[in-house]
Formats: sequence, C-alpha cells, structure tokens
Amino acid sequence: MSTAISTQAQQAIAERFRTVRQRTLDLCKPLTPEDMMVQSCAEASPAKWHLAHTAWFFESFILNEFLPGYKLFNPDFPWLFNSYYRTFAQFPEKRLRSSFSRPGLDQVLGYRQHVDEGIERLLEAGAEAEVLKRIELGANHEEQHQELLLTDILHAFYTNPLRPAYLKKAGQPGDEELRTSNSQLRHPGHPAKGFVKFEGGLVDVGFSGDGFCYDNELPRHRAFLEPFAIGDRLVTNGEFAEFIADGGYRQPELWLSAGWDALEQNGWRAPLYWNDVDGNWQLFTMHGEIGLDDAMDAPVSHVSYFEADAYARWAGMRLPTEAEWEMAAEGRAIEGNLLDSGELRPSGVAGAGEELKQMWGDCWEWTASAYLGYPGFEPLAGSLGEYNGKFMSGQMVLRGGSCATPKAHIRSSYRNFFQPETRWQFSGIRLVEK
Amino acid sequence: MSTAISTQAQQAIAERFRTVRQRTLDLCKPLTPEDMMVQSCAEASPAKWHLAHTAWFFESFILNEFLPGYKLFNPDFPWLFNSYYRTFAQFPEKRLRSSFSRPGLDQVLGYRQHVDEGIERLLEAGAEAEVLKRIELGANHEEQHQELLLTDILHAFYTNPLRPAYLKKAGQPGDEELRTSNSQLRHPGHPAKGFVKFEGGLVDVGFSGDGFCYDNELPRHRAFLEPFAIGDRLVTNGEFAEFIADGGYRQPELWLSAGWDALEQNGWRAPLYWNDVDGNWQLFTMHGEIGLDDAMDAPVSHVSYFEADAYARWAGMRLPTEAEWEMAAEGRAIEGNLLDSGELRPSGVAGAGEELKQMWGDCWEWTASAYLGYPGFEPLAGSLGEYNGKFMSGQMVLRGGSCATPKAHIRSSYRNFFQPETRWQFSGIRLVEK
Amino acid sequence: MSTAISTQAQQAIAERFRTVRQRTLDLCKPLTPEDMMVQSCAEASPAKWHLAHTAWFFESFILNEFLPGYKLFNPDFPWLFNSYYRTFAQFPEKRLRSSFSRPGLDQVLGYRQHVDEGIERLLEAGAEAEVLKRIELGANHEEQHQELLLTDILHAFYTNPLRPAYLKKAGQPGDEELRTSNSQLRHPGHPAKGFVKFEGGLVDVGFSGDGFCYDNELPRHRAFLEPFAIGDRLVTNGEFAEFIADGGYRQPELWLSAGWDALEQNGWRAPLYWNDVDGNWQLFTMHGEIGLDDAMDAPVSHVSYFEADAYARWAGMRLPTEAEWEMAAEGRAIEGNLLDSGELRPSGVAGAGEELKQMWGDCWEWTASAYLGYPGFEPLAGSLGEYNGKFMSGQMVLRGGSCATPKAHIRSSYRNFFQPETRWQFSGIRLVEK
Amino acid sequence: MSTAISTQAQQAIAERFRTVRQRTLDLCKPLTPEDMMVQSCAEASPAKWHLAHTAWFFESFILNEFLPGYKLFNPDFPWLFNSYYRTFAQFPEKRLRSSFSRPGLDQVLGYRQHVDEGIERLLEAGAEAEVLKRIELGANHEEQHQELLLTDILHAFYTNPLRPAYLKKAGQPGDEELRTSNSQLRHPGHPAKGFVKFEGGLVDVGFSGDGFCYDNELPRHRAFLEPFAIGDRLVTNGEFAEFIADGGYRQPELWLSAGWDALEQNGWRAPLYWNDVDGNWQLFTMHGEIGLDDAMDAPVSHVSYFEADAYARWAGMRLPTEAEWEMAAEGRAIEGNLLDSGELRPSGVAGAGEELKQMWGDCWEWTASAYLGYPGFEPLAGSLGEYNGKFMSGQMVLRGGSCATPKAHIRSSYRNFFQPETRWQFSGIRLVEK
Repeated sequence: MSTAISTQAQQAIAERFRTVRQRTLDLCKPLTPEDMMVQSCAEASPAKWHLAHTAWFFESFILNEFLPGYKLFNPDFPWLFNSYYRTFAQFPEKRLRSSFSRPGLDQVLGYRQHVDEGIERLLEAGAEAEVLKRIELGANHEEQHQELLLTDILHAFYTNPLRPAYLKKAGQPGDEELRTSNSQLRHPGHPAKGFVKFEGGLVDVGFSGDGFCYDNELPRHRAFLEPFAIGDRLVTNGEFAEFIADGGYRQPELWLSAGWDALEQNGWRAPLYWNDVDGNWQLFTMHGEIGLDDAMDAPVSHVSYFEADAYARWAGMRLPTEAEWEMAAEGRAIEGNLLDSGELRPSGVAGAGEELKQMWGDCWEWTASAYLGYPGFEPLAGSLGEYNGKFMSGQMVLRGGSCATPKAHIRSSYRNFFQPETRWQFSGIRLVEK
Repeated sequence: MSTAISTQAQQAIAERFRTVRQRTLDLCKPLTPEDMMVQSCAEASPAKWHLAHTAWFFESFILNEFLPGYKLFNPDFPWLFNSYYRTFAQFPEKRLRSSFSRPGLDQVLGYRQHVDEGIERLLEAGAEAEVLKRIELGANHEEQHQELLLTDILHAFYTNPLRPAYLKKAGQPGDEELRTSNSQLRHPGHPAKGFVKFEGGLVDVGFSGDGFCYDNELPRHRAFLEPFAIGDRLVTNGEFAEFIADGGYRQPELWLSAGWDALEQNGWRAPLYWNDVDGNWQLFTMHGEIGLDDAMDAPVSHVSYFEADAYARWAGMRLPTEAEWEMAAEGRAIEGNLLDSGELRPSGVAGAGEELKQMWGDCWEWTASAYLGYPGFEPLAGSLGEYNGKFMSGQMVLRGGSCATPKAHIRSSYRNFFQPETRWQFSGIRLVEK
Repeated sequence: MSTAISTQAQQAIAERFRTVRQRTLDLCKPLTPEDMMVQSCAEASPAKWHLAHTAWFFESFILNEFLPGYKLFNPDFPWLFNSYYRTFAQFPEKRLRSSFSRPGLDQVLGYRQHVDEGIERLLEAGAEAEVLKRIELGANHEEQHQELLLTDILHAFYTNPLRPAYLKKAGQPGDEELRTSNSQLRHPGHPAKGFVKFEGGLVDVGFSGDGFCYDNELPRHRAFLEPFAIGDRLVTNGEFAEFIADGGYRQPELWLSAGWDALEQNGWRAPLYWNDVDGNWQLFTMHGEIGLDDAMDAPVSHVSYFEADAYARWAGMRLPTEAEWEMAAEGRAIEGNLLDSGELRPSGVAGAGEELKQMWGDCWEWTASAYLGYPGFEPLAGSLGEYNGKFMSGQMVLRGGSCATPKAHIRSSYRNFFQPETRWQFSGIRLVEK
Repeated sequence: MSTAISTQAQQAIAERFRTVRQRTLDLCKPLTPEDMMVQSCAEASPAKWHLAHTAWFFESFILNEFLPGYKLFNPDFPWLFNSYYRTFAQFPEKRLRSSFSRPGLDQVLGYRQHVDEGIERLLEAGAEAEVLKRIELGANHEEQHQELLLTDILHAFYTNPLRPAYLKKAGQPGDEELRTSNSQLRHPGHPAKGFVKFEGGLVDVGFSGDGFCYDNELPRHRAFLEPFAIGDRLVTNGEFAEFIADGGYRQPELWLSAGWDALEQNGWRAPLYWNDVDGNWQLFTMHGEIGLDDAMDAPVSHVSYFEADAYARWAGMRLPTEAEWEMAAEGRAIEGNLLDSGELRPSGVAGAGEELKQMWGDCWEWTASAYLGYPGFEPLAGSLGEYNGKFMSGQMVLRGGSCATPKAHIRSSYRNFFQPETRWQFSGIRLVEK
C-alpha cells in the first residue's frame, strides 16, 4: 500500500474528519440526555449509543493499532460499544443499549473528545496511507450513524405518546412546549409524471475513480441491461394516497406473499407515521405532525419494499434494478434535499419535463435487487470485513440517499440495504415502465 | 362516613404525606436523569415514571375531585401517567414508559411540586374525612412505588453490562467511578435454626384497629388452623448454597411442574443476581457485587415462589400459609431491617434461641397461600376498586416487608402478592415444620 | 398396609377394571384411525395416545413391579407413552404425540390386550392389597383419560374446518355424511333461579370413608365457613347470552386483570364453541352444531374461570369456594347427566323449588379456590407422587363432574383443577349469593 | 393461443397425466392412513393433504372451467384443499391440515378417482390447447408435491421418537418391525475433486424450446458472465464432516450474520438428520438411520443455504450463481440419481476426471442467487399467476433436482426456491472457484 499521500489529501481528510465529528454533536443539540436514552424498536439504538459507538470505531480500528502509547479512555468501552464485530471483541445484546444510563452523556462526550485528540495527534504526525484510509472510513461510518441517529429519534418521538417534535418552528416557545404545530412545506406544484429512457446494453456497474467507496461497491464489473424508462421523480404522498383509497392495502393479489404476511401481522394500512385522525391522514415528521394536505406533493416515505413493490404493481409499473438506477445516476451532480439542506423531510420538486429529479436525497429508493456481493466481491481484511459482507442475505438494495444523508456521503455506486419489511428509514419509490 | 376528624389526626396525616413525598425524592439522589429512564424488564418501570405516577395518584383521586378550581399541571398527564385504572382513563402500554424522555425530569419534578401545593391547600383548608383517607391511601401508594423504584433500579443496574452500584461506600471516589467494591455486611454469626410453636385453632385473620389498611386486608374473618411450628429466622444464603450444591436445581422431583418449566425456560440455576464467576458465587446488590462468602449469613433473596417451595421440599419442610404467618406476627413490634435502616440489602441477625426474628424487613416471605379475596371481600368503590381486587388470580401472597419497605408501611395483616415466577423483588424464605 | 382383602372386594375391583377398560374402547367406536391421530391444541392429546397411555399406566406401576416374569409388550413403550412422570422415565415432548403414526392403532390395541392379560393373571392369582389399590388407581386414571379423550376429540372436530360430529342422530345416513344436523335437547323449561342456604361453621373437608380417593383429597381436615346461599342449578346458556348482550365481554371492570388480558389476546367474545353465524349463535357440540335457541336452558359450558368470575360479578354474585361446594354436596346421591347417560352435552333440568340440582354431571363447576395442598397433604410415595401434587400452582379447583365424567368416578370430595384460562373442558358456573 | 394440437402431443400429455397420477399413489404404498395424517413442521403438509390438493388443482383449474356439467365431488373441497390461491377461494390456515381426519383416506382416494375420470373425459373429447397446457401444468404441479410428500414424510418419521423407516430392506420382516437397520449405499470411491472451466461472456438464460416450463423460467434473456470454474461433483458427507470437525459451526466469521443467528437460535451443529450418538454421527434417511461411515462419499444433504455458504467460505470457494449453473447444465442429458432410480437418498458417484457429475438429482444445489423475476417476467394470468411470482422475496434459487425429483420434471432452466434457513429438502452444495 502506497504511503505517499499528498499534503493536500491529508488536509482534506483531516478537514472531513473534523466536520463530520462536529456535525454529529450539532445533530444532538435539540436532544436532552433523556432523549438520548430511548431505544424504541429493535432496529434502533439510543442517540447516546451512536455518539459512543462512532468514537469506538476510531479508537478500535485506528488509535489502538496506529497511535503509539494510546491509552484507552475506559477499559470497558472496547466491548461495551462494539456493535457486531465478532472477531474484534464480545459485545452486549443490542436491546441492552437502552440500559446504558452509565456511562452518562458527559462521559460519552469526554470519550469523543479523547478519541478526537488521538486522531489529531496522528494527523499532526503525518499519518500513513492506511491510517488516512481508515479515518476516511470512520468518517463515512459516522455519517451512516448520523442518519440512523435521526431516524431512530424520529421513531423514539413517535413512540412517545406525546409525539414531541425534533425541530421547532422559528418563533415558537421554548422547552416547555412539547408539541409543535405544522410548519410549511415547499409546494412547488405537482409535476406531470415523466419517464426518461435509457438504452441499456453491456454496462459497467460499481465504483470507479480515486475517492472513497465501501467494499460492497466493488469490483466494478460488466452487466447487461435491456432498454428501460425510469420515472423522472419519486412517487408522491398524493399518489400513494390514491393507492390506499383504491384498496391497495386490502388486495392480496397486489402483494408479494411475504409482504401480505407482513401487512397482516403488523396491521399495515398506510406507511409508517401516517395516522388516520377522524378520517384525515396525519403524517408524523421531524417537524411534528402535519396534515397530508400539506404534503401531497412531497415524496411518500417510510414505506417498506413490500409497499413499494405493491404500489408499482398497482400502477402497472415495476421498481428499477440497482444496475438500472446506477446507470441513470452515474455522472449526475449530487444536488438535492440531503441532510445539508436542513429540511429533514422529503419535499416536493420544482421543474418539469423529462429531466431526472430527486435522484439524490429526499428518500432512499427501493430497488428490485437483492443485496448480494458483486462478482468477485472480497470483503476488507480482518474485523473490518464484517462491515458489509456478512449482511448479504435477506435484504434489498436502496439507492440515492435521503433527506437525512450527508451530501458528502452519497454517490451513484452507493448501496444501502435493508430487510424488505423495513419502514423506519426515509425510504420511497421510483417507478420504471414495464 | 364520619367527617369529624381530630386536628391531631389531620396533622399526623399531613406529616405522613410530607415525609413520604420527600423520601421519594431522597431515594432518587444517587440517580442521574439518564438512570431514571431505564426500564429493564417487563415488570419494571423507569424511576421517572414512578415519580410522575405517584403525583398522578394524588391529582387524579384527590385534587381533581376535592380541590375546587384545581388546574391540571398538564392536560395530557391524566392519561399519560395512569398505570392501569381502566375506568379512570386510557393509558399507554406499560412497555412504552421507556420512551417518555419528554416530559423531562424537570417537568416531572414541577408536576410533583404542583401536586404537593394542591394537597397542602386542601390540608390548610381542613380536609374532610374522605380526603384525609385518600391522602393516606396516596401516601401508602407512594410507599409501594418507593420499593418498586428501588427494585427496578437494582434490575436496571444489573442489566447495564457495567453493573454500576446504587450505593457507594463511604470514602469512595466520586461519579467518575462506575463500580464499587464490596462493602461490609454485618456478620452476627449464623444462629442455630429454631422453630417456634403456635397452637392454632379458630383464629381471626385480617386487619383490625383504627389505622390504615388496604381493602384486601378486610374483612377480618375467622379461619381454623392446626398447630404449627414456624422457623425463627429466614433461610440464609449459606443454607441456600447447600441446596444448589446438592443439585437442587437439577432434580425435577423437588419442584412444582410449573416451577420446573420456569427453571428450564429461564435457565435458572441460582437466585436472580447470583453469578458464577470462575466457580465462585457473586451477588449483585445495591452496593455492587459482593462475594457469597461475605453474605453467607444474610437471608437468601430474589428467589421465586417456585424456588422457595423447592427449597422447602428439599429441606423436608414447607412454607407457611398466610394465616399462620399472620398469627405468628400479630402483635409484634415492627422492628427490623426495613427501608429506614438504609442498609438496602438483607442482613444477618444477631441473637439466638427460639425467638422469632426477621418477621419485618430483610425479605418478603413467600407464603403457601394464593392471593384471593377474603370471605366477604369488597373492593373500594369506583376506580380505586381496581387497586387490588382485579389482581386476585395467579399470584401468591408474601408477608412481612423487605429492606426496601418503609417501616410505616408494613403491618401483620399486610398482603403483598406476586406471580410465582417473580424474582426481582427482595423475596426470601421462612420454613414451617411438616 | 393390610393385605387381607375380601374376595368380594377383589371381585369388585376386577369388575371395575374390566368395565373401565371396555368403555374406553367403546368411546372410540365413532372414531377412525385418522381421527385418533389429531392433536389440535396444546392441552389435548390424540385419542390413540390416550389408549396407549392408559395401558402404560397399568404396565408401569403394576405389571412391571408385581407380575413375576412380565414381559414388556415393546421395549420403547415405557418411555414413549410416559406422560410426565420424570422420576419414572424420559418422555417425549407432549406436542410430538401427533407424530406417533407408528405404532399403528392395531399395535396399540394389541398393547392394551397384552396389558389386560397381565392384569387378569394378577387378579387370578389373588392380588395383594397394594396391587388391588393400584388397579383401582389405574381404573380411576383411565376414567380421567376417557373424559379427556372426549373433550380432545370435540376440540379436534371443531378445529377441522368441516366440523364433523362425534355422535350421529338415529336414522341419519352413514359415513359419507360429514355433518349432522341438530339433534333435540331436552327442554324442561327454565326453572326460576333459587338459592339454598347453608349454616357454615367449623366443617370437615376432604375425603372420608373406605373407598378410593386421590391423594389430593386428603387429609380430611377442619375449615371454618360463614353461612352461605348457593344456587340450586347451573347458569344457563340463555342467562349467559344476556351477559354477552349486555356487553359483558367489553367491560374490563367486570374482569380480573389476567382475565381481561386473556380476553384480549385470544379475542374472546363468547364461550368456546360459540360461533356468530350471521348474528345468530351456533354452538358446536358432540352432536354437531346446534342453534342457541335449541339450548337456551342447558347450562353454559366451555367457559374459563375468568368468564365464570366475570359473569358472577356482573350478576352481583360470586363463585363458591371448594369447601362450600363440598359442604353442599356431601351426602347427596350421585345422579345426573354424567357420561353414563350418553347425552355427552350439558342439558336442562326439570323440577323447581330450592332443591339443589345438577350437582353431579353436566358441567364441572369453577370454584373460587386455588388448587393447593390441604393442611398436612402428602403425595403418594415414589413416581405416583407426581400424579397430583406437582400441579399445585396456578390452577383453580372445579367440582362435580361433567357429562363426560363416568358416574363411578365422581364424589363430593373430588378435586379437578385447570388453569383459569382453560375452556376446552365441559366447565360451567354455579353462583353463590354475596 | 393455437388450438391445433397434434394427436401425438395429446397422447403424450394423456400418458404423462396417467403416469404422474399413478406414481403419487405408488409413493404412498409404504404409508398407513395414520402416517398420512402427520404434519411435523410448519413447512410440511400431511401426505393425505398432498393427495387431495393435487386432485384439487385439476378440478379447480381445469374441470370447473372446461368440462361442461362437471359436478364437484364435494362442495367443501374447493376451499378446503386450496393451498394459497387467494384470488380463487378462501383456504384454511396451513397448520390446520393436521386436523383433517375427515375426509378419510378413502374419500380422498375417491376424490382423486372422480377427478381422474373427469380429466379422461376431457381427453377423450379431444381437449383444446389450453386444457392440455393446464393438464401438463397440473402434472408438473403434482410432481412437485411428490417430492414434498417424500420430504415431509422423512421429517414426520424423524419427528416420531421411534424413527421408523419409509423403505425397508429386502428380506426384512413386516409391519411389526418399526425400525430398519442400515442398508448398503453404493461406494464408488471418493473421486478427486475437479473443476470444469467455462468462458462466460454474454449468455442466454431461461427456458427455450417447445416443451413445458414454469412462468418463472421466462423470458429467456441475456446476462453477462465472467469466466468461472465449477466443481465437477457435489460436496460429500466426508468433506462436510471435516468442516464440522474444524469448528465450522463455532466460527461466526465463516457465516452470514443471518446464518449465525439461525445457527444460534436453532442450535445447529450439523446438517438436519445428523445425530451425534456417543460421538459417532448417525444420519436419518428414508432407509432408517445409517452411520456416517457408510455414507462418506455420498453428497451432504439437508443443509441450509447458510451452511452451504459457510462451507464454501471455509473451503476458500463460493457457490455458483444460477446463470453460471444453467450455463454449465444446458444441453446435458438428464441422467442421475432422481426419483426414478428409487434410491431415495443421495449417493456417491463413479467416474473421475473433470467431467461434470451429479448435475441432475442427488441434491438440489444452492446457488448464490436470490429468487427474483427475470427481466420482463410476467406471471400467468388469473389465479394461476399466484403459482410462482408472489414468492419472489426472501428466497434463494436451487438448481438440478434431487433424489426425490421425477426425471420428467427437471431441466436446465428449472428454478427451485426456498428460504435460506430451509433444511428439510434434499439440498446440497456444489462449489465454484474464487
């Protein structure tokens, strides 16, 4: 591995590290230490745990190995804040994270500072290539947890019967006010649905270039695609409400068998966070509850793969494969309603015509592709090999990032993955013509 | 109902109210707001919830009804902090209490103060008999939650993989120290086991006198008892360790069928909070982990009814019925290792001979009696009738209080009750000769 | 133990043995080998298993021990058909009984014959007292399984979506007809509800006399009862339908807390085997489905303890304790709608006035007493000690037998017991005035 | 759709229909009516249900629609024996099939005969193309159930604690003998492992030709493959035993995360049907239990996808994709240890060198491909569209057939699919070089 890294590249990585670390703290500003204890479903973790675990990653895979004389902040933390790296250390059952009242938030913040100082020392000394690569990996890892932190808090606040809001409208009263009223969504008008055609053929899929990517984006490889026409924007809440009104949740023939089972077991009759209040749909968001009427043109979000698939079947369409999606996205500038916009909910799009819109941000887009290794896939060596590869079973690929994804984090080859019944992420629908 | 209440009685109740309310706050002093969020098992509630619910009781059953012009602290709290009074209001599922990060601890403390002020206004005005009776009921209710708050925190800290201690030894370092080392238990020596004989006959069972009692202690009624001889002290950890060493947890013939099922399903091989560390038993307590060697003479605690019953069978003995226990206890001064001692764990007894010891405090004593209504039992009128009566199914009676029971709370007719597999309370064993 | 047994007593026991054994076979006549494979709920066993297990009891506890040179029918059967006697042998999980297609029915019938021959040889040789006692125990054991076989088949046929009937009306077509139409129930008219008064006082409870009883009916002991007035007949379907119509299944205040949980989890809105067909209640019985209108005066059956308790509360009454019930029943001739009547369903009563009716048969009567050992209770020695004693936890006592109980089997001190949520037995309600 | 069908084609389909129908009955010859009631796991159905459901298919999709004046055998059977066609009729919960003691086996056989007669009448009349196509579909459907019937019986007999054998050795005693001793497996010697190379490139995948195929094998489409080298035979029991001995079931790094969870939850430490008897592996088969030593060269069977994947990782190899497998298989004559051989268990292979062996029969081969629709996939119209398409979620593709697959049923484009934790099928492993 080359050890010659330009000073400029070093500075870029250092800057990225500092920015990411600071943003995690910024995202916690609206939260109390008590908020940061809540773990409201099996998929989620407490915000405090995210704070600690992202520090743990830098300590475990960088400081321990590369910083001479590094002293652990606390000898229990290496196993306490391990998520799932079996070859690295023992770890507590995930559900126990809700019992971590100790260490307190102050200690966790101290842990983060301790780790930051260690990384800064490494950077000052002129880190070798492998260290810089891992710092970059750690920054990307932390960005994933930023998104999880936000979606976990959304679920936590939804579970709280008082339904507090993460974001407050400007001019609202302070802490004693538990609920916020609706804020304004941008209403750019409902553009006519268009489809953009692609020729297909023998295409290259997977990451290429000099920057960072995860192991699961490699190797770049050839795949054959038939011609296809992909929707120019995401399916909206208004369109999805038509599916509901048309009995979409009551017709098993629209659903995959496992999807119908999930619907029945969980009593689904709308996306997660939709509530029927006296016959009107209310949507719970990071801004509190809003009426469907105020979000008709925003993309539908918090749908499972099963709902996305059923909607597509109802609409006479299908979902894109991940190769199709990637072909459509490759080379497009990364602009959109990402975490950096601060909107923190999917929003409508301006513009019309057959130009692809919302490829980045708003909602992760369910694809029709199972999450499997690319031909020739090799996980990273050592414990870091557990990062992605061992989850290649029973999950579907999502593409394009969401309103909770940092802009620096996403790219056309990026593969997110969740089980098909997952709904707590910002996950939506883009159609392809059959 | 008589409305003439002496000033002295009024003052006594007012004093009791204030003492109880202050003690709840005192018990929370070692806890952080984060600690007060943890709900680590289905039986338990977060400490913050206990703080709020005990205020809710006074508000719902007294202030709402009897204080003219009383203004709710928060319009959501009447349903949010309702535990299980179905005829009073809706209530959230119990497991959701871990999501109540809002209201924050400050708001809950404000709620308590708001309620306290309301009660004080009622007291100043010269409360009528029914009000005083309910304040007394509320004080007793809060004392029950004091005990639950402590046993819930013990479980929460046990669930936390770091196993922090609620109590710290004098002279120990401060907050940054998560674990405490063993503190000293009193070692009065292991008194020879004695049995005290009672004649039995037609006895009166149930509460009598002028003071407070729960509805389930009434009516006082006649029951016939054969002569019996009851153990003069509780079974110790050392004695219980012999049962374990003798294969007590591996011999189904010692166990009730449902008990053996519970043993197999839960993998029981010792009381809750006993851990086998390299062949040595460690006991987790409010003082942190201690070695069995340091607690041989203390009463065994955190055993289920099934374990108490199996131990008794192994020892060639049986458990007392609740009527036998009450006959033995009636008229004895209430002295012992109760909450007021501050010990917060069962401790050994001095003295010997055939004098009954440890009838009060240390551990709740499992009886052989199912929890059912006494002949002629009538629950309180209205929603308060849900307090005790509706739980008269599937539970066994325990008597005598524990090291977490306020001294003012316990009496000879007091009936505690839990399901037979329950272990998170301070529950122990007293034997009767067969 | 005395070994001098009169010839007459010997002959009586031999006769009892033969009668019981034959009746088990007779009860299977309406069943096919396929019917005898079904195990439709966790409580039930296949009929073929009942046939085999009742032979196993005689083999294991009598022939093995007392018949010199006895040769096992099959060396696997001692563990294969053991139900739950842990100190005797291993046994398969109960749910696996549905996989016992081998041994086939022929082999099981051969097993029964083999065992019968062994017992006959013992009887011919002039069996000693302990042997005769155990044969009597075995006959009683088999009678219990006769009742279970019938109730298990009722459940099996109810689970079969075709709902076949165990009994066919005279004059009906043959085997190809899967469903029977309603048969006639006796309609004696609905007698006015009366209550019979008892003085109470210090009474003797438990078995007395020379005949057979189970260990759990001993020792006879003193208990103190207040005066009480007990219903002169069972609660009818018609009366229970009023409870349903009055919202009895929708009012939590009528229910024990565990009962309401059971109602919600299982979706109870009527007794087991009641089906709402287009707004009319249909009752599934051993005679097939009948309309409620044809069974208004018959006792309500297949209710849990929770439903019995809720009904009593709604009616302003309570359930009897087992001591009260026994006091009322003691000395009364055993006559009623028992298995011997062949009716196989609860039926209405003729007569009126304040004479106790239906004390025997029709339905087991839930009492308000938990199933616990009597003062001084000692289980039988050895493996037979597992018969009754180890189930003394979490169950309620029922008294009086049902339409599936052999007349020879029941007596005033007889204690049946089931968990409070149990509904697949013929279990009904007798009230006591509060 | 063309209606001109040659007489020859008509006769071929008629012959195929009769052969398939007869074979189903032949497969049931070793079974008693009681055996045919057992449903021993959630995946399985009773043999009698398979008999009835395969008749139901012909009745529901052919006779009802195409035979004028067809009279249902029984008006309840259309819903009673529906498996999962929601758009066709209601159907009972799958687990209830074990309660179908009525209709008895005789009635089910009568149902089959009734349906056969109907089909014969259609054939005599000169069936139109659509009818012939559906008869062919029904024959294929029944062949799938033949395999399921056998694997379900294997599981049923394994669940029976007596472990009876489906096949008896020649010269063995009759029905009274419940267990068979080991029969001989062919021992051709353990051929050296070889790998056969394929060039890859842009290949065609999916069915082509005139014969029958399922909708999920279409449309034939292009896919790009890199060069690969595929194992010339299946992994043997002996080779898999080395994986076990090397701690393969104790090293999480070899397993997918979901696979390790399955291993822990189910306590896997060997393939299904392997039992450790005093340190020696015994394998339960259709011939009864045999020692591993007698089956070292036979292919390992009854492994889940997770085990196949972990084995491949341990061996430094990978599993083939379904396109790779199909490329290797296309054009090869269908010969091997299929149902027609009557062996009913995987067996070793003769021959050596780098010639592909065991591509057909022995064991289904897990591929690395998730079961999804091919590009442009369209399910059949109407209720038959529920046959395959709705299961395209959460399953992995298997290829090549097993020793329980009829020879006439399998082809190179055939796609079988099961959830990755499935083990009750004859499922094995073929490796590909990394």
